Amino acid sequence: MQNTLKTWATVPVDSDFTIYNLPIGVFQKAGQEPRLASIIGDHVIDMVVAADLGVFDAIDFDKHVLARDTANDYISLGKKVTSAIRLALQTSLCSGGSPLSDSTALIPVQEVKLLLPVYVRDYTDFYSSIEHATNVGKMFRDPENALLPNWRHLPVGYHGRASSIVVSGTDIHRPCGQTRPVADAPPVYGPSKRLDFELEMAFVVGQDTQLGDRIDVNQAEDYIFGLCLFNDWSARDIQKWEYVPLGPFLGKSFASSVSPWIVPLEAFADYRVDAPEQTPEPLPYLQSGSRRNIDIQLAVDIRTSDDVESRVSTSNFKYMYWSMAQQLTHHTVNGCNVHVGDMMASGTISGKDESSYGSMLEISWAGKRPVTLADGTQRSFIADGDTVVMRGHAGSGDRRVGFGAVEAKVLPAK
Amino acid sequence: MQNTLKTWATVPVDSDFTIYNLPIGVFQKAGQEPRLASIIGDHVIDMVVAADLGVFDAIDFDKHVLARDTANDYISLGKKVTSAIRLALQTSLCSGGSPLSDSTALIPVQEVKLLLPVYVRDYTDFYSSIEHATNVGKMFRDPENALLPNWRHLPVGYHGRASSIVVSGTDIHRPCGQTRPVADAPPVYGPSKRLDFELEMAFVVGQDTQLGDRIDVNQAEDYIFGLCLFNDWSARDIQKWEYVPLGPFLGKSFASSVSPWIVPLEAFADYRVDAPEQTPEPLPYLQSGSRRNIDIQLAVDIRTSDDVESRVSTSNFKYMYWSMAQQLTHHTVNGCNVHVGDMMASGTISGKDESSYGSMLEISWAGKRPVTLADGTQRSFIADGDTVVMRGHAGSGDRRVGFGAVEAKVLPAK
Repeated sequence: MQNTLKTWATVPVDSDFTIYNLPIGVFQKAGQEPRLASIIGDHVIDMVVAADLGVFDAIDFDKHVLARDTANDYISLGKKVTSAIRLALQTSLCSGGSPLSDSTALIPVQEVKLLLPVYVRDYTDFYSSIEHATNVGKMFRDPENALLPNWRHLPVGYHGRASSIVVSGTDIHRPCGQTRPVADAPPVYGPSKRLDFELEMAFVVGQDTQLGDRIDVNQAEDYIFGLCLFNDWSARDIQKWEYVPLGPFLGKSFASSVSPWIVPLEAFADYRVDAPEQTPEPLPYLQSGSRRNIDIQLAVDIRTSDDVESRVSTSNFKYMYWSMAQQLTHHTVNGCNVHVGDMMASGTISGKDESSYGSMLEISWAGKRPVTLADGTQRSFIADGDTVVMRGHAGSGDRRVGFGAVEAKVLPAK
Repeated sequence: MQNTLKTWATVPVDSDFTIYNLPIGVFQKAGQEPRLASIIGDHVIDMVVAADLGVFDAIDFDKHVLARDTANDYISLGKKVTSAIRLALQTSLCSGGSPLSDSTALIPVQEVKLLLPVYVRDYTDFYSSIEHATNVGKMFRDPENALLPNWRHLPVGYHGRASSIVVSGTDIHRPCGQTRPVADAPPVYGPSKRLDFELEMAFVVGQDTQLGDRIDVNQAEDYIFGLCLFNDWSARDIQKWEYVPLGPFLGKSFASSVSPWIVPLEAFADYRVDAPEQTPEPLPYLQSGSRRNIDIQLAVDIRTSDDVESRVSTSNFKYMYWSMAQQLTHHTVNGCNVHVGDMMASGTISGKDESSYGSMLEISWAGKRPVTLADGTQRSFIADGDTVVMRGHAGSGDRRVGFGAVEAKVLPAK
């Protein structure tokens, strides 16, 4: 447990952005170029101004990386430097007479636009919750053999579309596509009728590797800069028709929503927990120590057009069967190269009981058990006009470390 | 048919790079920064020098795009401009007293290094040869129902790994990974024992779209800048174990080899042919005119350590069931955005008879029918030390339009 820190900055009760967090993101003020930011309470910290005020003077790095429109070059500085920068910010925010306390460095978050925090070179989506994989297998395939034979031996994953990752707050259109609503009848074209969210976490790669390199599972976390909250939007009817034999494609690639904040992995040091036992034991290249997981509470709400939110899921990142380190190690075991800014998402995070299912597909059990929202309407999937809101945090009170909301409103098909 | 063109430049017999071709690529001379190039015969054309000599003076564009390390900004000029540039080059190469004829603009290709021609933002691989899909379905799944129900209704595809696309001439290491050689026994870890090539063509996207946009099938070719020859390396044993239910992942992402030259689509105008009839008729959004395909002769050789080449496949791009326009239209029907430089590959191009199969998996029928090479050795898959060489061209004689070789040597697993 870290020492107790006291900041002079105002941090509202239940803020995700306490002095123990200090994530990295990118913001834009009207009429200005994008810059890197952190956030404390409800105030964005302009990293360029902080540098100009001398907060980072003791650290040797190219200050220009703070004036970029993505955090890639910042992350490329390496954890030794980025950790020192975060620590300097933390120290300044706790020091009487800090140059930050009487400056333009702190800007109310509602006055700025938050942008996609990194340029995502390549995006991978895993499928690492055993409860989710089991639920989907029961519905899409065979209830008696829901988990396929490979599932307990390797973190199943697939390459996703990097271009359609958007930052929280970006509206999305209901996708159109081919579906086959009636088995053995010809397929039809039109807007998806089974638009769904997937509650996920994603990690951001922090170091490049070269083609042919493998990352050892015990060093894998050195290659992980930090975490985002991630909504992997899915059109279940498109996905079901298209996915054999080459996997999800247009059922996913219309949009994925990500948090504007990347929380450095080190901010979760106090919240490491044991992962579920893996049976059978994985092959040696995937074996790593205990405390592979992180206790991050997650929740999904649907906000309807009357601005009322209804909670439809409460889950936790600690349920993951395969850890981030195992995912990254497996991804590179064939020599696949990774880059700073690559995003690797967990797959839907479901827990054992129904209240913790991370997608409408599971919550409504493919439409058989619609949920009733606060306004009395029912949902099996997501309706036009709905805003899906995800939240996630570790810890509590003035030690809370979270992501803020990831939200996106669904507009009718174009 | 275009008018007959006569160039003063030397073009060897059977060169892919006649005056009718003039593809675009990127080269580097020792000690210089990369620049854009075209090629005539065995001589690279330095596009920066050509511009300095005034060859492009009548065309209004930012000449700086010729001095980049990828062709993305060049392609972004739009086809109207890039076609004018190509035509100016063609005219100059056919004119007496051309400034190019007595200059440093033409450099013997063996004196330069050819680089990856574009930055590939996102890479997609289709599965659009009916013969290949049928062969794989017979071997991997059910011989009686080899084609899955969706196959004739949509161009099946999946997102691939962009980071591991390398230019021809780059050696690759045999990948390691998990396989399950004995059904129902536990999986094992080690170098792939079934390393394979896939003979493919890829197109390069020439215009950006915004998230939510759809490309009409009748306008799709306006969004295609040109074509490359593509080897989608595959580790069949890794692929077979990992691919359910989310598709190919590490069995593909260790490397894909691409030609250094992108041939503009317009260079194939004389070689358009009717595509195979599509039964059933596709949904209206995928219906386009006839002459959707291009007659491009393709061949694969294995070069063994004694430098002797053995031909293992002779195929043709005209066999494709789904056209490039249909692929791109389908890819964006859900609103997925595309970028200049996106690469979309065809999937393995197999013909009806065994000599035209585009992968060792099919040629050796999963190892049951090994091929004997010129040196007397046998191959079911690719051996360490083998160089796989792909070639492709349309037309013949002094009208030939091709890609040069795509070759890569397989080194032992690291």
